[in-house]
Amino acid sequence: MAHCKVRRNHNTFCMEKNWTYEDIMHLDRFQRAAFINTVSGFKSANLIGTVSPEGVTNLAIFNSVIHIGANPPYLGFILRPTTVERHTYDNIKANGQYTINHVHQNFVNQAHQTSAKYPAAVSEFDACGFTPQYTAAVRAPYVQESLIKIGMEYVEEYPIELNGTLLVIGKIVEVLLPEDAMLETGHVELAKAKSTAVAGLDSYYQPELLTRLSFARPGEEVKKLD
Amino acid sequence: MAHCKVRRNHNTFCMEKNWTYEDIMHLDRFQRAAFINTVSGFKSANLIGTVSPEGVTNLAIFNSVIHIGANPPYLGFILRPTTVERHTYDNIKANGQYTINHVHQNFVNQAHQTSAKYPAAVSEFDACGFTPQYTAAVRAPYVQESLIKIGMEYVEEYPIELNGTLLVIGKIVEVLLPEDAMLETGHVELAKAKSTAVAGLDSYYQPELLTRLSFARPGEEVKKLD
Repeated sequence: MAHCKVRRNHNTFCMEKNWTYEDIMHLDRFQRAAFINTVSGFKSANLIGTVSPEGVTNLAIFNSVIHIGANPPYLGFILRPTTVERHTYDNIKANGQYTINHVHQNFVNQAHQTSAKYPAAVSEFDACGFTPQYTAAVRAPYVQESLIKIGMEYVEEYPIELNGTLLVIGKIVEVLLPEDAMLETGHVELAKAKSTAVAGLDSYYQPELLTRLSFARPGEEVKKLD
Repeated sequence: MAHCKVRRNHNTFCMEKNWTYEDIMHLDRFQRAAFINTVSGFKSANLIGTVSPEGVTNLAIFNSVIHIGANPPYLGFILRPTTVERHTYDNIKANGQYTINHVHQNFVNQAHQTSAKYPAAVSEFDACGFTPQYTAAVRAPYVQESLIKIGMEYVEEYPIELNGTLLVIGKIVEVLLPEDAMLETGHVELAKAKSTAVAGLDSYYQPELLTRLSFARPGEEVKKLD
Protein backbone atom coordinates (compact mmCIF):
# COMPACT_ATOMS: atom_id res chain seq x y z
CA MET A 1 0.00 0.00 0.00
CA ALA A 2 0.94 3.66 0.03
CA HIS A 3 4.11 4.59 1.88
CA CYS A 4 4.24 7.33 4.49
CA LYS A 5 6.41 10.38 4.80
CA VAL A 6 7.03 11.79 8.23
CA ARG A 7 6.39 15.49 7.81
CA ARG A 8 4.35 17.45 10.30
CA ASN A 9 1.66 19.67 8.86
CA HIS A 10 0.62 23.00 10.30
CA ASN A 11 -2.51 21.77 11.99
CA THR A 12 -3.79 18.73 13.84
CA PHE A 13 -3.12 16.29 11.02
CA CYS A 14 0.04 14.30 11.66
CA MET A 15 1.55 12.64 8.60
CA GLU A 16 1.37 13.09 4.88
CA LYS A 17 0.78 9.98 2.83
CA ASN A 18 1.66 9.60 -0.87
CA TRP A 19 -0.94 7.72 -2.88
CA THR A 20 0.56 6.50 -6.13
CA TYR A 21 -1.51 5.88 -9.25
CA GLU A 22 -1.22 2.13 -8.55
CA ASP A 23 -2.42 2.60 -4.97
CA ILE A 24 -5.46 4.48 -6.25
CA MET A 25 -6.22 1.83 -8.88
CA HIS A 26 -5.99 -0.88 -6.20
CA LEU A 27 -8.73 0.68 -4.07
CA ASP A 28 -12.06 -1.09 -4.47
CA ARG A 29 -14.40 0.70 -6.84
CA PHE A 30 -16.57 2.27 -4.12
CA GLN A 31 -13.55 3.57 -2.20
CA ARG A 32 -11.96 4.89 -5.39
CA ALA A 33 -15.20 6.59 -6.46
CA ALA A 34 -15.55 8.27 -3.03
CA PHE A 35 -11.87 9.23 -2.97
CA ILE A 36 -11.65 10.75 -6.45
CA ASN A 37 -15.05 12.44 -6.19
CA THR A 38 -14.13 14.17 -2.93
CA VAL A 39 -10.40 14.85 -3.35
CA SER A 40 -10.84 17.63 -5.92
CA GLY A 41 -12.76 19.80 -3.45
CA PHE A 42 -16.20 21.29 -2.92
CA LYS A 43 -18.73 21.54 -5.73
CA SER A 44 -22.03 23.32 -6.28
CA ALA A 45 -25.23 21.44 -5.42
CA ASN A 46 -27.89 22.01 -8.05
CA LEU A 47 -31.11 20.40 -9.23
CA ILE A 48 -31.63 20.37 -12.99
CA GLY A 49 -35.28 20.59 -14.00
CA THR A 50 -36.58 19.42 -17.37
CA VAL A 51 -39.78 18.21 -19.00
CA SER A 52 -40.26 15.42 -21.56
CA PRO A 53 -42.22 15.74 -24.85
CA GLU A 54 -44.96 13.73 -23.07
CA GLY A 55 -45.14 16.41 -20.37
CA VAL A 56 -43.47 14.41 -17.56
CA THR A 57 -41.33 16.72 -15.43
CA ASN A 58 -37.90 15.49 -14.33
CA LEU A 59 -35.53 16.62 -11.61
CA ALA A 60 -31.97 15.39 -10.99
CA ILE A 61 -29.16 16.50 -8.71
CA PHE A 62 -25.83 17.57 -10.24
CA ASN A 63 -22.54 18.61 -8.61
CA SER A 64 -20.82 19.57 -11.85
CA VAL A 65 -22.30 22.94 -12.87
CA ILE A 66 -19.43 25.22 -13.89
CA HIS A 67 -18.92 28.77 -15.05
CA ILE A 68 -18.04 29.08 -18.76
CA GLY A 69 -18.38 32.82 -19.31
CA ALA A 70 -20.17 35.96 -18.13
CA ASN A 71 -20.62 37.89 -21.40
CA PRO A 72 -22.72 36.37 -22.78
CA PRO A 73 -23.61 34.28 -19.73
CA TYR A 74 -22.82 30.56 -20.24
CA LEU A 75 -22.83 27.67 -17.77
CA GLY A 76 -21.76 24.09 -18.35
CA PHE A 77 -22.27 20.77 -16.60
CA ILE A 78 -20.88 17.26 -16.96
CA LEU A 79 -23.32 14.49 -17.72
CA ARG A 80 -22.67 10.79 -17.32
CA PRO A 81 -24.57 9.37 -20.31
CA THR A 82 -25.26 5.90 -18.92
CA THR A 83 -26.94 6.80 -15.64
CA VAL A 84 -30.41 7.89 -14.55
CA GLU A 85 -29.45 11.39 -15.63
CA ARG A 86 -30.07 10.32 -19.21
CA HIS A 87 -33.68 11.51 -18.79
CA THR A 88 -32.28 14.98 -18.14
CA TYR A 89 -30.26 14.85 -21.34
CA ASP A 90 -33.07 13.46 -23.52
CA ASN A 91 -35.42 16.17 -22.24
CA ILE A 92 -32.88 18.95 -22.81
CA LYS A 93 -32.27 17.78 -26.37
CA ALA A 94 -35.99 17.52 -27.13
CA ASN A 95 -37.03 20.76 -25.44
CA GLY A 96 -33.97 22.99 -25.77
CA GLN A 97 -34.45 24.47 -22.30
CA TYR A 98 -33.81 23.46 -18.70
CA THR A 99 -33.46 25.01 -15.26
CA ILE A 100 -30.66 24.99 -12.66
CA ASN A 101 -31.89 25.35 -9.06
CA HIS A 102 -29.74 25.68 -5.93
CA VAL A 103 -30.06 23.02 -3.25
CA HIS A 104 -31.11 24.88 -0.09
CA GLN A 105 -30.08 23.66 3.36
CA ASN A 106 -33.72 22.86 4.21
CA PHE A 107 -34.23 20.24 1.49
CA VAL A 108 -30.91 18.41 1.17
CA ASN A 109 -32.53 15.01 1.79
CA GLN A 110 -35.23 15.47 -0.85
CA ALA A 111 -32.66 16.80 -3.33
CA HIS A 112 -30.45 13.73 -2.75
CA GLN A 113 -33.50 11.50 -3.24
CA THR A 114 -33.74 12.70 -6.88
CA SER A 115 -30.60 10.61 -7.58
CA ALA A 116 -32.65 7.40 -7.19
CA LYS A 117 -33.37 5.62 -10.46
CA TYR A 118 -37.00 6.46 -11.07
CA PRO A 119 -38.68 5.24 -14.29
CA ALA A 120 -39.14 7.85 -17.03
CA ALA A 121 -42.88 8.05 -16.36
CA VAL A 122 -42.34 9.13 -12.74
CA SER A 123 -41.66 12.80 -11.98
CA GLU A 124 -39.03 13.39 -9.30
CA PHE A 125 -40.95 16.58 -8.48
CA ASP A 126 -43.82 14.38 -7.22
CA ALA A 127 -41.72 11.53 -5.86
CA CYS A 128 -39.34 13.77 -3.89
CA GLY A 129 -41.72 16.53 -2.84
CA PHE A 130 -40.91 19.53 -5.02
CA THR A 131 -43.23 22.01 -6.74
CA PRO A 132 -42.76 22.85 -10.44
CA GLN A 133 -42.79 26.60 -11.16
CA TYR A 134 -43.07 28.11 -14.65
CA THR A 135 -42.38 31.54 -16.11
CA ALA A 136 -43.24 33.02 -19.49
CA ALA A 137 -39.60 32.94 -20.59
CA VAL A 138 -38.69 29.30 -19.92
CA ARG A 139 -40.63 26.18 -20.95
CA ALA A 140 -39.00 23.96 -18.32
CA PRO A 141 -39.95 23.63 -14.64
CA TYR A 142 -38.12 25.57 -11.94
CA VAL A 143 -38.04 24.24 -8.38
CA GLN A 144 -40.32 26.61 -6.47
CA GLU A 145 -38.64 25.70 -3.16
CA SER A 146 -35.20 26.86 -4.41
CA LEU A 147 -34.23 30.43 -3.61
CA ILE A 148 -31.87 30.78 -6.60
CA LYS A 149 -33.02 29.50 -10.00
CA ILE A 150 -31.50 29.84 -13.43
CA GLY A 151 -33.35 29.41 -16.73
CA MET A 152 -31.11 27.84 -19.39
CA GLU A 153 -31.13 27.38 -23.15
CA TYR A 154 -29.09 24.51 -24.60
CA VAL A 155 -26.22 25.73 -26.84
CA GLU A 156 -23.78 22.91 -27.53
CA GLU A 157 -22.05 19.83 -26.16
CA TYR A 158 -18.58 18.28 -26.12
CA PRO A 159 -18.37 14.48 -25.92
CA ILE A 160 -15.40 13.50 -23.73
CA GLU A 161 -14.34 10.30 -25.41
CA LEU A 162 -11.98 9.22 -22.60
CA ASN A 163 -14.90 7.95 -20.55
CA GLY A 164 -18.14 8.72 -22.37
CA THR A 165 -19.07 11.79 -20.35
CA LEU A 166 -20.44 14.92 -21.97
CA LEU A 167 -19.89 18.62 -21.30
CA VAL A 168 -23.24 20.35 -21.94
CA ILE A 169 -23.15 24.13 -22.36
CA GLY A 170 -26.15 26.44 -22.11
CA LYS A 171 -26.91 30.14 -22.10
CA ILE A 172 -28.57 31.79 -19.11
CA VAL A 173 -31.88 33.25 -20.30
CA GLU A 174 -33.43 34.15 -16.93
CA VAL A 175 -32.52 34.23 -13.24
CA LEU A 176 -35.00 34.19 -10.36
CA LEU A 177 -33.74 35.09 -6.92
CA PRO A 178 -34.80 36.96 -3.78
CA GLU A 179 -34.42 40.68 -4.32
CA ASP A 180 -32.15 41.05 -1.30
CA ALA A 181 -29.89 38.07 -2.12
CA MET A 182 -27.90 40.18 -4.59
CA LEU A 183 -25.55 42.99 -3.59
CA GLU A 184 -25.20 46.22 -5.58
CA THR A 185 -21.87 44.88 -6.83
CA GLY A 186 -23.71 42.00 -8.52
CA HIS A 187 -22.52 39.37 -6.02
CA VAL A 188 -25.09 36.79 -4.96
CA GLU A 189 -24.94 36.12 -1.21
CA LEU A 190 -24.86 32.34 -1.31
CA ALA A 191 -24.33 31.75 2.42
CA LYS A 192 -27.20 34.09 3.33
CA ALA A 193 -29.38 32.19 0.84
CA LYS A 194 -28.31 28.91 2.54
CA SER A 195 -27.22 27.37 -0.75
CA THR A 196 -25.26 24.20 -0.05
CA ALA A 197 -22.02 22.77 -1.40
CA VAL A 198 -21.36 19.09 -1.98
CA ALA A 199 -18.33 16.82 -1.87
CA GLY A 200 -18.56 13.71 -3.99
CA LEU A 201 -21.96 12.15 -4.38
CA ASP A 202 -23.30 12.10 -0.83
CA SER A 203 -21.74 14.73 1.50
CA TYR A 204 -23.55 18.05 1.85
CA TYR A 205 -21.97 21.14 3.38
CA GLN A 206 -23.11 24.59 4.50
CA PRO A 207 -20.47 27.19 3.64
CA GLU A 208 -20.01 30.35 5.71
CA LEU A 209 -18.34 33.45 4.29
CA LEU A 210 -14.71 33.81 5.40
CA THR A 211 -13.76 36.89 3.42
CA ARG A 212 -14.27 38.80 0.20
CA LEU A 213 -10.98 40.11 -1.17
CA SER A 214 -9.94 43.03 -3.36
CA PHE A 215 -8.64 42.63 -6.94
CA ALA A 216 -5.04 41.38 -6.68
CA ARG A 217 -2.13 43.36 -8.14
CA PRO A 218 1.60 42.58 -7.98
CA GLY A 219 3.29 44.33 -5.05
CA GLU A 220 0.00 45.29 -3.35
CA GLU A 221 -1.48 43.37 -0.48
CA VAL A 222 -5.04 42.11 -1.03
CA LYS A 223 -7.59 43.68 1.31
CA LYS A 224 -10.74 42.36 2.88
CA LEU A 225 -13.81 44.06 1.38
CA ASP A 226 -16.84 44.91 3.51
CA MET B 1 -35.00 47.08 -15.03
CA ALA B 2 -36.17 43.71 -13.74
CA HIS B 3 -39.76 43.45 -12.63
CA CYS B 4 -40.76 41.99 -9.27
CA LYS B 5 -43.12 39.21 -8.37
CA VAL B 6 -44.74 39.26 -4.98
CA ARG B 7 -44.22 35.74 -3.68
CA ARG B 8 -43.06 35.04 -0.16
CA ASN B 9 -40.22 32.56 0.22
CA HIS B 10 -39.81 30.15 3.13
CA ASN B 11 -37.13 32.15 4.93
CA THR B 12 -36.22 35.74 5.66
CA PHE B 13 -35.99 36.78 2.03
CA CYS B 14 -39.05 38.67 0.95
CA MET B 15 -39.60 38.87 -2.80
CA GLU B 16 -38.50 36.96 -5.84
CA LYS B 17 -37.23 39.02 -8.74
CA ASN B 18 -37.06 37.83 -12.37
CA TRP B 19 -33.94 38.89 -14.19
CA THR B 20 -34.46 38.60 -17.92
CA TYR B 21 -31.60 38.02 -20.36
CA GLU B 22 -31.86 41.71 -21.33
CA ASP B 23 -31.66 42.81 -17.69
CA ILE B 24 -28.50 40.74 -17.26
CA MET B 25 -26.93 42.14 -20.42
CA HIS B 26 -27.71 45.68 -19.23
CA LEU B 27 -25.72 45.27 -16.01
CA ASP B 28 -22.31 46.92 -16.20
CA ARG B 29 -19.51 44.45 -16.95
CA PHE B 30 -18.24 44.23 -13.36
CA GLN B 31 -21.73 43.66 -11.94
CA ARG B 32 -22.49 41.08 -14.63
CA ALA B 33 -19.19 39.26 -14.02
CA ALA B 34 -19.85 39.14 -10.26
CA PHE B 35 -23.47 38.07 -10.78
CA ILE B 36 -22.85 35.28 -13.27
CA ASN B 37 -19.74 34.02 -11.48
CA THR B 38 -21.59 33.70 -8.17
CA VAL B 39 -25.10 32.70 -9.24
CA SER B 40 -24.15 29.15 -10.26
CA GLY B 41 -23.07 28.26 -6.72
CA PHE B 42 -20.00 27.31 -4.73
CA LYS B 43 -16.84 26.09 -6.45
CA SER B 44 -13.60 24.43 -5.34
CA ALA B 45 -10.66 26.69 -4.50
CA ASN B 46 -7.43 25.26 -5.88
CA LEU B 47 -3.93 26.42 -6.71
CA ILE B 48 -2.44 24.96 -9.88
CA GLY B 49 1.35 24.57 -9.71
CA THR B 50 3.55 24.36 -12.81
CA VAL B 51 7.13 24.99 -13.88
CA SER B 52 8.42 26.54 -17.11
CA PRO B 53 11.14 25.03 -19.35
CA GLU B 54 13.43 27.73 -17.87
CA GLY B 55 12.75 26.40 -14.38
CA VAL B 56 10.49 29.25 -13.17
CA THR B 57 7.76 27.87 -10.94
CA ASN B 58 4.24 29.24 -11.35
CA LEU B 59 1.17 29.18 -9.15
CA ALA B 60 -2.35 30.34 -10.04
CA ILE B 61 -5.72 30.09 -8.33
CA PHE B 62 -8.59 28.32 -10.14
CA ASN B 63 -12.23 27.84 -9.14
CA SER B 64 -13.09 25.56 -12.05
CA VAL B 65 -11.60 22.15 -11.19
CA ILE B 66 -14.21 19.50 -11.93
CA HIS B 67 -14.60 15.75 -11.67
CA ILE B 68 -14.49 13.94 -15.02
CA GLY B 69 -14.21 10.31 -13.90
CA ALA B 70 -12.99 8.01 -11.13
CA ASN B 71 -11.81 4.96 -13.10
CA PRO B 72 -9.33 5.92 -14.36
CA PRO B 73 -9.17 9.11 -12.31
CA TYR B 74 -9.58 12.24 -14.45
CA LEU B 75 -10.07 15.88 -13.46
CA GLY B 76 -10.72 18.86 -15.68
CA PHE B 77 -10.50 22.62 -15.35
CA ILE B 78 -11.55 25.61 -17.45
CA LEU B 79 -8.84 27.97 -18.59
CA ARG B 80 -9.35 31.48 -19.91
CA PRO B 81 -6.65 31.67 -22.59
CA THR B 82 -6.14 35.44 -22.61
CA THR B 83 -5.50 36.06 -18.92
CA VAL B 84 -2.53 35.70 -16.58
CA GLU B 85 -3.35 32.01 -16.38
CA ARG B 86 -1.74 31.58 -19.79
CA HIS B 87 1.57 30.86 -17.99
CA THR B 88 -0.13 27.88 -16.40
CA TYR B 89 -1.23 26.58 -19.80
CA ASP B 90 2.13 27.14 -21.51
CA ASN B 91 3.90 25.30 -18.69
CA ILE B 92 1.45 22.40 -18.74
CA LYS B 93 1.86 22.00 -22.50
CA ALA B 94 5.67 22.14 -22.29
CA ASN B 95 6.05 19.92 -19.21
CA GLY B 96 3.06 17.57 -19.41
CA GLN B 97 2.53 17.65 -15.65
CA TYR B 98 1.01 19.97 -13.06
CA THR B 99 -0.34 19.92 -9.52
CA ILE B 100 -3.71 20.83 -7.98
CA ASN B 101 -3.50 22.02 -4.36
CA HIS B 102 -6.42 22.86 -2.04
CA VAL B 103 -6.66 26.39 -0.69
CA HIS B 104 -6.58 26.02 3.11
CA GLN B 105 -8.42 28.47 5.38
CA ASN B 106 -5.09 29.75 6.75
CA PHE B 107 -3.74 31.08 3.46
CA VAL B 108 -6.74 32.42 1.56
CA ASN B 109 -5.16 35.89 1.15
CA GLN B 110 -1.88 34.55 -0.26
CA ALA B 111 -3.79 32.20 -2.57
CA HIS B 112 -5.90 35.11 -3.87
CA GLN B 113 -2.70 37.12 -4.40
CA THR B 114 -1.58 34.57 -7.05
CA SER B 115 -4.30 36.01 -9.33
CA ALA B 116 -2.24 39.22 -9.73
CA LYS B 117 -0.60 39.58 -13.16
CA TYR B 118 3.02 38.79 -12.37
CA PRO B 119 5.52 38.68 -15.26
CA ALA B 120 6.54 35.21 -16.49
CA ALA B 121 9.98 35.53 -14.83
CA VAL B 122 8.41 35.96 -11.36
CA SER B 123 7.39 32.87 -9.39
CA GLU B 124 4.11 33.26 -7.50
CA PHE B 125 5.57 30.78 -4.98
CA ASP B 126 8.11 33.46 -4.00
CA ALA B 127 5.90 36.50 -4.52
CA CYS B 128 2.97 35.11 -2.52
CA GLY B 129 4.82 33.14 0.14
CA PHE B 130 4.44 29.48 -0.78
CA THR B 131 6.99 26.65 -0.69
CA PRO B 132 7.48 24.36 -3.71
CA GLN B 133 7.47 20.64 -2.83
CA TYR B 134 8.58 17.88 -5.21
CA THR B 135 8.10 14.12 -5.30
CA ALA B 136 9.76 11.46 -7.43
CA ALA B 137 6.55 10.87 -9.39
CA VAL B 138 5.70 14.42 -10.49
CA ARG B 139 8.00 16.96 -12.16
CA ALA B 140 5.87 19.96 -11.16
CA PRO B 141 5.82 21.79 -7.82
CA TYR B 142 3.26 21.01 -5.16
CA VAL B 143 2.32 23.66 -2.59
CA GLN B 144 3.87 22.39 0.64
CA GLU B 145 1.43 24.46 2.74
CA SER B 146 -1.61 22.71 1.20
CA LEU B 147 -2.96 19.70 3.06
CA ILE B 148 -4.47 18.06 -0.01
CA LYS B 149 -2.38 17.92 -3.21
CA ILE B 150 -2.98 16.14 -6.49
CA GLY B 151 -0.30 15.30 -9.06
CA MET B 152 -1.67 15.54 -12.61
CA GLU B 153 -0.63 14.45 -16.09
CA TYR B 154 -2.05 16.38 -19.07
CA VAL B 155 -4.29 14.20 -21.28
CA GLU B 156 -6.29 16.36 -23.67
CA GLU B 157 -8.14 19.61 -24.17
CA TYR B 158 -11.40 20.85 -25.67
CA PRO B 159 -11.46 24.40 -27.07
CA ILE B 160 -14.82 26.01 -26.34
CA GLU B 161 -15.23 28.19 -29.36
CA LEU B 162 -18.17 30.19 -27.96
CA ASN B 163 -15.83 32.34 -25.91
CA GLY B 164 -12.27 31.08 -26.34
CA THR B 165 -12.09 29.15 -23.08
CA LEU B 166 -10.51 25.72 -22.90
CA LEU B 167 -11.43 22.57 -20.97
CA VAL B 168 -8.14 20.92 -19.95
CA ILE B 169 -8.34 17.29 -18.81
CA GLY B 170 -5.64 15.45 -16.87
CA LYS B 171 -5.12 12.10 -15.18
CA ILE B 172 -4.42 11.90 -11.45
CA VAL B 173 -0.99 10.27 -11.04
CA GLU B 174 -0.44 10.90 -7.32
CA VAL B 175 -2.30 12.26 -4.28
CA LEU B 176 -0.66 13.60 -1.13
CA LEU B 177 -2.83 14.09 1.92
CA PRO B 178 -2.73 13.71 5.69
CA GLU B 179 -3.15 10.07 6.63
CA ASP B 180 -6.16 10.82 8.83
CA ALA B 181 -7.95 13.07 6.31
CA MET B 182 -9.36 10.05 4.49
CA LEU B 183 -12.04 7.76 5.86
CA GLU B 184 -12.04 3.98 5.33
CA THR B 185 -14.83 4.51 2.82
CA GLY B 186 -12.47 6.56 0.66
CA HIS B 187 -14.12 9.90 1.47
CA VAL B 188 -11.77 12.83 2.04
CA GLU B 189 -12.86 14.95 5.01
CA LEU B 190 -12.70 18.35 3.39
CA ALA B 191 -14.16 20.36 6.28
CA LYS B 192 -11.77 18.77 8.78
CA ALA B 193 -8.90 19.63 6.41
CA LYS B 194 -10.20 23.24 6.30
CA SER B 195 -10.30 23.27 2.52
CA THR B 196 -12.20 26.32 1.33
CA ALA B 197 -14.88 26.91 -1.29
CA VAL B 198 -15.15 29.98 -3.44
CA ALA B 199 -17.96 31.94 -5.08
CA GLY B 200 -17.02 33.94 -8.12
CA LEU B 201 -13.54 35.40 -8.19
CA ASP B 202 -13.20 36.94 -4.73
CA SER B 203 -15.45 35.40 -2.06
CA TYR B 204 -14.00 32.60 0.07
CA TYR B 205 -16.09 30.32 2.24
CA GLN B 206 -15.48 27.68 4.92
CA PRO B 207 -17.94 24.81 4.50
CA GLU B 208 -19.10 22.73 7.47
CA LEU B 209 -20.52 19.24 7.04
CA LEU B 210 -24.33 19.14 7.20
CA THR B 211 -24.91 15.47 6.45
CA ARG B 212 -23.67 12.46 4.53
CA LEU B 213 -26.55 10.54 2.98
CA SER B 214 -27.15 6.93 1.96
CA PHE B 215 -27.44 5.79 -1.68
CA ALA B 216 -30.89 6.83 -2.90
CA ARG B 217 -33.42 4.25 -4.15
CA PRO B 218 -37.02 4.80 -5.32
CA GLY B 219 -39.52 4.32 -2.49
CA GLU B 220 -36.85 4.30 0.26
CA GLU B 221 -36.09 7.31 2.39
CA VAL B 222 -32.43 8.43 2.34
CA LYS B 223 -30.68 8.08 5.70
CA LYS B 224 -27.98 10.10 7.36
CA LEU B 225 -24.74 8.10 7.55
CA ASP B 226 -22.44 8.35 10.57
